[in-house]
Amino acid sequence: MSGRQAVVLLSGGLDSMVCAALAREQGFGVLALTIDYHQRHRIELEAAKRIAATLAERHIVLPIDLTAFGGSALTSDIAVPKDGVAPGIPVTYVPARNTVFLSLALACAEAAGARDLFVGVNALDYSGYPDCRPDFIAAFEALANLGTKAGVEGDPFTLHAPLQRMTKADIAREAARLGLNAGVSHSCYDPATDGGACGLCDACRLRAKGFEEAGLPDPTRYASS
Amino acid sequence: MSGRQAVVLLSGGLDSMVCAALAREQGFGVLALTIDYHQRHRIELEAAKRIAATLAERHIVLPIDLTAFGGSALTSDIAVPKDGVAPGIPVTYVPARNTVFLSLALACAEAAGARDLFVGVNALDYSGYPDCRPDFIAAFEALANLGTKAGVEGDPFTLHAPLQRMTKADIAREAARLGLNAGVSHSCYDPATDGGACGLCDACRLRAKGFEEAGLPDPTRYASS
Repeated sequence: MSGRQAVVLLSGGLDSMVCAALAREQGFGVLALTIDYHQRHRIELEAAKRIAATLAERHIVLPIDLTAFGGSALTSDIAVPKDGVAPGIPVTYVPARNTVFLSLALACAEAAGARDLFVGVNALDYSGYPDCRPDFIAAFEALANLGTKAGVEGDPFTLHAPLQRMTKADIAREAARLGLNAGVSHSCYDPATDGGACGLCDACRLRAKGFEEAGLPDPTRYASS
Repeated sequence: MSGRQAVVLLSGGLDSMVCAALAREQGFGVLALTIDYHQRHRIELEAAKRIAATLAERHIVLPIDLTAFGGSALTSDIAVPKDGVAPGIPVTYVPARNTVFLSLALACAEAAGARDLFVGVNALDYSGYPDCRPDFIAAFEALANLGTKAGVEGDPFTLHAPLQRMTKADIAREAARLGLNAGVSHSCYDPATDGGACGLCDACRLRAKGFEEAGLPDPTRYASS
């Protein structure tokens, strides 16, 4: 890889796809990092590979079995809610997931000589996860510069969250502006479909709302049942 | 497990052994978490199992292959220095290791319903790693309470680093006071020995200095060659 590199956390969803494309637009070579945390909706890993093939110079898929801890509908045998986005933090919250993922992105970046991290969190149209909010992102950046060799030696990390203040409609518009095929990404949480999106979980509802409000065609393939 | 639980990061070294015993002394049931990060000195994992068998109610060994990132003498084919503890951060520094390990301890704790984390870092007789210092530990605790469901819902985490201001002699004395068999632990970084300690790497030198300054017998088994 040549030029400035950035580590981009790539889940395979629409947000991280747009985030990777924005990093590239800013002139970074993208080192995409996907965490295979043994999520039940494993099909998102295939989406991540498809996205990385078009946007990344290098792609690392790192396995880490968070089912050893449990405590979430995404890693344990707990039903994914389908009744609409409710107030509060839902059971799809994975304990400390973004803290774990950002830590791994930081380790990856420091080892690779990259000083820029990108994460596709957003805190407007979201599920209420605490580890998507701006104060968490700012605190992680500060931690990164206290807890690393590069950080304390005056070569600090920057944590970019370019989608942070975007609505899902903004993100759908960004995808169109960047010429992305959003149909390649996979946002649905439900592992029990035929590989299409369920259309009912929070992730599906928020994504569909984005395309609708942006007045753009929804390229999502929905499950037949 | 019953009563108050704490997640204790257990590497298999003397510091984390004393840390686990201190958690137990404070009345916590110990959930020991050992990260198998594909460290070259894999024998410390066996030490962790021996320690957990005597001090922990539950032991999770979580594999995560940090050799995928590289960048350290503990995970890559870089020689472990043996010329004495030098100023600056040595090549045994593993990029963002404690950030990654604490994140995993946090995920483990939140999923298990524990709100106390213990880590055996110390910042007096140490190798100069940035992620052992008190300001890093304080920043991580703050992050934990911003980035978790429990933290934002008013059931905060406490990060204990009881060895933080101890010298290695203090730690050796604590091990004796707590009735621990320190010979069970393994601190050496060198993977090229017969399972005994090399006596020359930073970890060995700091450990031996502790027993010597405390006026206690050194129970370490040193390699024959």
